Amino acid sequence: VWMGKIKIGGTHSKAVLVSAEGHILAETDGPCTNHWLVGVDNCINGINDMVQRAKIKAGLDPDTPVCSLGMSLSGGEQKAAIQKLIDDMRERYPKLSQSYFITTDAIGAMATASDYGGIVVISGTGSNCKLVNPDGTQVGCGGWGHMMGDEGSAYWISHLAIKTVFDARDNLVTSPHDINYVKKAMEEYFQVSDLMGMLPHLYRIFQKSHFAGFCRKLAEGGSAGDALCQHVFTEAGKALARHIVAVLPRVHQDLFSGELGLPVLCVGSVWRSWELMKSGFTQVLSEAQAHGYGHFQKYSLLTLRQSSALGGAKMGAQNAGASLPLDYSANINVFFSHTFNQ
Amino acid sequence: VWMGKIKIGGTHSKAVLVSAEGHILAETDGPCTNHWLVGVDNCINGINDMVQRAKIKAGLDPDTPVCSLGMSLSGGEQKAAIQKLIDDMRERYPKLSQSYFITTDAIGAMATASDYGGIVVISGTGSNCKLVNPDGTQVGCGGWGHMMGDEGSAYWISHLAIKTVFDARDNLVTSPHDINYVKKAMEEYFQVSDLMGMLPHLYRIFQKSHFAGFCRKLAEGGSAGDALCQHVFTEAGKALARHIVAVLPRVHQDLFSGELGLPVLCVGSVWRSWELMKSGFTQVLSEAQAHGYGHFQKYSLLTLRQSSALGGAKMGAQNAGASLPLDYSANINVFFSHTFNQ
Repeated sequence: VWMGKIKIGGTHSKAVLVSAEGHILAETDGPCTNHWLVGVDNCINGINDMVQRAKIKAGLDPDTPVCSLGMSLSGGEQKAAIQKLIDDMRERYPKLSQSYFITTDAIGAMATASDYGGIVVISGTGSNCKLVNPDGTQVGCGGWGHMMGDEGSAYWISHLAIKTVFDARDNLVTSPHDINYVKKAMEEYFQVSDLMGMLPHLYRIFQKSHFAGFCRKLAEGGSAGDALCQHVFTEAGKALARHIVAVLPRVHQDLFSGELGLPVLCVGSVWRSWELMKSGFTQVLSEAQAHGYGHFQKYSLLTLRQSSALGGAKMGAQNAGASLPLDYSANINVFFSHTFNQ
Repeated sequence: VWMGKIKIGGTHSKAVLVSAEGHILAETDGPCTNHWLVGVDNCINGINDMVQRAKIKAGLDPDTPVCSLGMSLSGGEQKAAIQKLIDDMRERYPKLSQSYFITTDAIGAMATASDYGGIVVISGTGSNCKLVNPDGTQVGCGGWGHMMGDEGSAYWISHLAIKTVFDARDNLVTSPHDINYVKKAMEEYFQVSDLMGMLPHLYRIFQKSHFAGFCRKLAEGGSAGDALCQHVFTEAGKALARHIVAVLPRVHQDLFSGELGLPVLCVGSVWRSWELMKSGFTQVLSEAQAHGYGHFQKYSLLTLRQSSALGGAKMGAQNAGASLPLDYSANINVFFSHTFNQ
């Protein structure tokens, strides 16, 4: 028996084939297979292709289904759409897998860090926040993609910086800081000579992952002391903290009382710029705490030391009636803790 | 000799074939041919197709070029891209036209209303603002499309209303008013049963013109008294007024001193909801005037009674060395005037 695990991202997807003992037999990569972005047909074909290639790579018979296929993807909470995805996969590719389990990227990450719950805040290309209470109930905030959310994500940070340049050029909004560094970095990154040149990058040849990639240049600028770059990351820190504030009223009391205080699991590349976001992030949480959350005395920010596929595998195993105990303390790293002044 | 006039919009395009005496010989429609959205190749093919169909419809020889082809399109101010568009058209379709003239939708409208200048504020599917001074110099604000601007447009109004519903559901931002009317109208217009159902409309099957069309439902709600619908239009009024404030410092003194005060030409379907936007619009202009524009004592809002293609034809004729005098007072309608308190 082998189990497949697939992590579906906005930029690329990854399939891992593991043995029942937990050994990795093969890994394959694929393009973005998010069904919201590419449609159900492309999504299913992409998944099948990755799994079949993994079977062949591992020297296994591609006509024998894997035991279970666990998938994590954004939008993995919409039951009707997910059921249709599974039904379509069963019908179209009966040799793919015996059973299926689908969860979100956030829940997969949470399951890797704890079986007691906490808040997951994802900020990569996009952003998302999910509260998991000790009783397993979930409350979400965000995760609607760049057209309707993604506040505090790499896409959002890139957009905010570029919009600041456009608005300053138009005299529509005065920039809080000099725009020259950001403007120059934008022209270099997108290989354009003026604002007009940005239009194809915003429309005809728009690629969210490439657009969001500009965030790295802004992080470099912020670290080098540019005030506007620092400003957009401060705003991102505020935006991400507001996602936590949004779910605070639904946090079970017990989640506040552990040694770490409220555990916040931080996932995604934007968190590498924590030092630039720190002032905005801590400010918003302190303001919220001051306005009446008596239980909320402390919080800690954690990162995963292991792949979130581990949690996905655990949940897939549970779903199939097996158990896969994890040493949670070995899976996480606490990078920031704050206790509020009384 | 015949002259072609093409109006290129984000939703659809229109070609008109006129005789030298100004009689309309044929009209044809085409899809969106904005080169920023569909690429240069599709743009050129679409234009050629419309013009050739118009020639045939008028009973003319499709192999004989028209005398001049005047085109108005957003993005018509980027000289290098426009020249390339013309060069490509000449090379690919030598039988299309003898001469070419390209301007923006804003300038075509302004030329229909006045030969003295003013401010054009377009709010249809998208939005844009252009100041034309008496000496012909132009200053723009906005017009960057829905990814980087379009504030106060039908797209923007629809997005603001829907985002308010999403943020209220997420507890991320508290809505200033009850969301039930907007939520129900959204579910009806987009034929969805919940917020998740909106995702395809935002991504995979997103069509800007369809998304923006939801604005009509919001206008109905506002007129019927729904506070959130009224709120989003008030915000749109503010946003459009901010475009005017952005170009105010560049307005030539003489433009303030006519009988109408500063003339503001209002183009696009969103202006039909003027009564809903009025409070926000007048508030922003009054605040700007109070903060130091001594010349700015009065402004008037105008609409066109004639097609903006008239102004485009005038400019095309000028470009070809001919003149086409227009009775401007017959072309405009003043629907609002305001004199500031001293």
